[in-house]
Amino acid sequence: MSFYPQIKQFLLGRTLPTSARHHERLNNAVALTVLAADALSSVAYATEEILKVLVLAGSAVIGGSIWVAVAITLLLLIITLSYQQTIRAYPNGGGAYIVAHDNLGLYPGLIAAAALMIDYVLTVTVSIASGVDNLTSIPLLQPLRHFSVELCLLFISLIMLANLRGVRESGRIFMIPTYAFIVSVFLMIGVGFFKQVTGHIDTSLPVIQPTEPLSVFLILRAFSQGCTALTGVEAISNGVPAFKPPESKNARLTMVYMGLILGIMFLGVTYFAKIYHIVPNPKETVISQLAHNIFGYGLFYNFVQVATLLILLLAANTSYADFPRLSSLLARDGFAPRQLALLGERLVYSNGIILLSLFSAALIIVFKGSVDKLISLFAVGVFMSFALSQAGMVRHWFRERSPGWHSRAFMNGLGSMITVIVLLVILQTKFLAGAWVVVVAIPVIVSLFLAIHRHYRYVVERLSLQGIPPRDYLPRPNPAVVTRPAVVIVGYLHRGTVEALDYARTIADEIVAVHVDIGNTDREKLQKQWRQLEPDIPLKIIDSPYRALIEPIVNFVSQFEEHHQDVFTTVIIPAFVPRNWWASFLHNQTALFLKTALRAQKSRVVTTVRYYL
Amino acid sequence: MSFYPQIKQFLLGRTLPTSARHHERLNNAVALTVLAADALSSVAYATEEILKVLVLAGSAVIGGSIWVAVAITLLLLIITLSYQQTIRAYPNGGGAYIVAHDNLGLYPGLIAAAALMIDYVLTVTVSIASGVDNLTSIPLLQPLRHFSVELCLLFISLIMLANLRGVRESGRIFMIPTYAFIVSVFLMIGVGFFKQVTGHIDTSLPVIQPTEPLSVFLILRAFSQGCTALTGVEAISNGVPAFKPPESKNARLTMVYMGLILGIMFLGVTYFAKIYHIVPNPKETVISQLAHNIFGYGLFYNFVQVATLLILLLAANTSYADFPRLSSLLARDGFAPRQLALLGERLVYSNGIILLSLFSAALIIVFKGSVDKLISLFAVGVFMSFALSQAGMVRHWFRERSPGWHSRAFMNGLGSMITVIVLLVILQTKFLAGAWVVVVAIPVIVSLFLAIHRHYRYVVERLSLQGIPPRDYLPRPNPAVVTRPAVVIVGYLHRGTVEALDYARTIADEIVAVHVDIGNTDREKLQKQWRQLEPDIPLKIIDSPYRALIEPIVNFVSQFEEHHQDVFTTVIIPAFVPRNWWASFLHNQTALFLKTALRAQKSRVVTTVRYYL
Repeated sequence: MSFYPQIKQFLLGRTLPTSARHHERLNNAVALTVLAADALSSVAYATEEILKVLVLAGSAVIGGSIWVAVAITLLLLIITLSYQQTIRAYPNGGGAYIVAHDNLGLYPGLIAAAALMIDYVLTVTVSIASGVDNLTSIPLLQPLRHFSVELCLLFISLIMLANLRGVRESGRIFMIPTYAFIVSVFLMIGVGFFKQVTGHIDTSLPVIQPTEPLSVFLILRAFSQGCTALTGVEAISNGVPAFKPPESKNARLTMVYMGLILGIMFLGVTYFAKIYHIVPNPKETVISQLAHNIFGYGLFYNFVQVATLLILLLAANTSYADFPRLSSLLARDGFAPRQLALLGERLVYSNGIILLSLFSAALIIVFKGSVDKLISLFAVGVFMSFALSQAGMVRHWFRERSPGWHSRAFMNGLGSMITVIVLLVILQTKFLAGAWVVVVAIPVIVSLFLAIHRHYRYVVERLSLQGIPPRDYLPRPNPAVVTRPAVVIVGYLHRGTVEALDYARTIADEIVAVHVDIGNTDREKLQKQWRQLEPDIPLKIIDSPYRALIEPIVNFVSQFEEHHQDVFTTVIIPAFVPRNWWASFLHNQTALFLKTALRAQKSRVVTTVRYYL
Repeated sequence: MSFYPQIKQFLLGRTLPTSARHHERLNNAVALTVLAADALSSVAYATEEILKVLVLAGSAVIGGSIWVAVAITLLLLIITLSYQQTIRAYPNGGGAYIVAHDNLGLYPGLIAAAALMIDYVLTVTVSIASGVDNLTSIPLLQPLRHFSVELCLLFISLIMLANLRGVRESGRIFMIPTYAFIVSVFLMIGVGFFKQVTGHIDTSLPVIQPTEPLSVFLILRAFSQGCTALTGVEAISNGVPAFKPPESKNARLTMVYMGLILGIMFLGVTYFAKIYHIVPNPKETVISQLAHNIFGYGLFYNFVQVATLLILLLAANTSYADFPRLSSLLARDGFAPRQLALLGERLVYSNGIILLSLFSAALIIVFKGSVDKLISLFAVGVFMSFALSQAGMVRHWFRERSPGWHSRAFMNGLGSMITVIVLLVILQTKFLAGAWVVVVAIPVIVSLFLAIHRHYRYVVERLSLQGIPPRDYLPRPNPAVVTRPAVVIVGYLHRGTVEALDYARTIADEIVAVHVDIGNTDREKLQKQWRQLEPDIPLKIIDSPYRALIEPIVNFVSQFEEHHQDVFTTVIIPAFVPRNWWASFLHNQTALFLKTALRAQKSRVVTTVRYYL
């Protein structure tokens, strides 16, 4: 029996007291790794997703990817500038839910929250699936590709466990994968550039026949897929309070750095994918192809692949901070189940962490761990929350009219407009491929938020103490006047029943025992025993020709309660408790069903008198 | 809320009163169909399984199947004669459990029971899997082969549903598939014979290279696989009371008919499979190949296939009578969970029916609906129960020494000896292929039977009333002397809590309220409200720095109970009941966890006071 707590402590560590809670401040270099991993990691799949669309029009046009990447980088610039304003206005952290809720009202806030929750789940699944793809691109590990789904689930479990332990304390360890990834991509770009200049590139473009004509739609679709590169750029604006003072300025600076690094890496990878004539390959990711083209299969190649896996896992990990925090905010506002606002033993929102893991695991299983399929759902939620958040900021500046508000409102207005257009493009081009799922899910989730809210409000109203007058003096009920009736349910007469009847005598002054005969009762024996042991309590035997056990009891109790209105009727159920948990399967769970049925009949007081074997 | 009962009534029909239970007597023609379907249906797969082994030694030796079939038919003759004696001795039905238990003692009886239970499950799975194979052998339906597992599960569900309704009432409908199958096989044999005589057979033997040398082991293995033809022959001896008087004589006569029909069909199918050079084919069953060779694809062919499917479903259905009956017998003797002895609403052993369906569905899923794999497990249990039952009969005759007992004992002795030898052959040849599963399972199941038995005996002992003296006069406890303490658990003060405290006042004379502060209690507000509403009851607030809720309460209750020994301490838990079942997910299930924890701490009296919103 003490085995489970031991395992739990081994896995999760000791329970922490509430007083141990504190917020660690991060310097800019660490903050970049913690908050920007999600954004930077998208370099690992964004280029590939652009190429996968363009290749449909044949290998001749695949080089156009660089122009798509340029367009997306411009978009990155606008969004980064726009979020600079958000950081300025919300030094305590301005997530889309808060900004939209504050400025646009409840419904936009909830829509933003729903969009964010979907995207947090997708960040986990896409990052982990892409990480596994990169891992299994390594020639030595290619046989593992058959176990992609299992590997994804394994990584989800590990990240979940780490977060249930509470990973914030070890923030510094996160620097390694992020900087390893940045270094490896920049090294790849640098060496690639050197080789290009010295004329060492001599791959030829494989000829792939077009299966679709090159159309505006196809280009826009490539653009939509590539927009996944921008997922996560908002993370820094959520995390402003984690920076060292001056928080706002540090956060803005870090965001600029992040934008720069992301832009260079994304353009560089896309450029060299073009130079090296890289074509998407279901068995090897674009990053892996690029790395082995530039470095050959060797130490550097493996370093790139492992760094890519690690930053993708780190990206998944950021959702493990964001999702539980957002759901605890929603829970506190009464839009999500209260349990999501409870701090677990290790001072983390354990329920949110588990919920995120379950959703992610389900998506991995449904989409068989395929990045291609998952990515069609991705970005919709991101851009929806971008647009709502930026629109909220415009409203914010118009309300506040602080110095310089004109240019800030313009910047946010531009950001909002552009992101709405991109959102429409994404919806238009990816709707049938999967974006419709998100379009359907968001109103469903919002209705769920509202239904939960209504329920909690209703409960508070019904339980309110308003209208109960203060009581200065509470007379003890006079036992001679108030009746205290009780019904004791008797299966057969055993030591447990005898004890329950003894208890009934201590608390009640009017007792009746009920037995239901489903056709196998030895009435004579029962009545003889009863006369010997319980002569003072009347025993009522009910015939049950249809062998129902619960129904006759519930009906009897209902009638009995009707005859004893305005007082509490205690329904006493004797139960014996076996020594082992499994033994309970060997006994009819009548007590359990009976309690449920009594609850449906609105019996108020149900007492279990237990007899321990 | 009233939707579920409606669906249930639609699917299962009205609840039947116990008095509606009766036993229908069957005339011999009907009895043959009901009790012999299992045995006769094995013709559908036994020949195929022999061929599948022989073909390993190449197509040259496949014709030897007929000699294997002859050996099995001789075995059938011996077993039939042996069971004639059982029917004579057990006119009330002599299943292997009863015969072995009566004559050889408890352990042989339980081993026979375990073997039988395994075989009932295998009868369901093998019959249904083979039925589906025959259905999807029809050219038009071949695409369905991809959904074999789903089809098997569908058929299991349908048979389960039919049995939960209670199918005995419609016994006569069972005549159709059995006689259709008998007619179609005899027709096939007849037309085949006619064609042979008139020289219309001109298929050539496809040349298949041997992958294994022809060995004694291979021949014995073919024999073992073919022995599945004999599964179910004992059914008539179990069902003697269902015959019209004179039961014993009618049963014996029917069994002879069954043996004859089975022998002819099995030999006929095997013979013509040889004549038509039929070789096992994963896409088409042997029966289907034979039928289209003899009849061509047409009405007759489809008739054969459908009749084969139907008799196999009927064979599965016989297990649905046998398994619940055997498990109810075991439950009555205390070797299986009591729930298995309960008659359901439709006067059938619903729990046994559901259990059999679950086991069968699990086997179908694990073995992917493959007859070949399932069949390796089959027959072990059958022959074990044959051997035990026959050995029991020998003992019976030696004890009874009624006129003619010598020859009867000899017959049963021969049967027992032969079946033991066959059992050893089966174990030897199929052990690695799957029979080991059964060899492992039987002792596990028997130990389970014994553990369950020990548990029930223990419970009866502990609950026994022995030692409690008869009480002529039971004084009501004097409220002035006996204390009636109560602990009320308070989450926060709401209408539900107020009501629970009111109840506590009516039943207790020493009340304490307990509240646990996990760090989010507004103590001032709580204490102010308390002073206003419940000034007469002390409120104890417990600090919980580690945010545990249950543990502090349970500790407090334990201490409280220690201070109040020899009296019942009532632990009162206020609970509010939301209007909808789903709403309970939105509230912490603290009450539930608390009750479980109190149970572990051996608190005796736990009372729930419910407040309905």
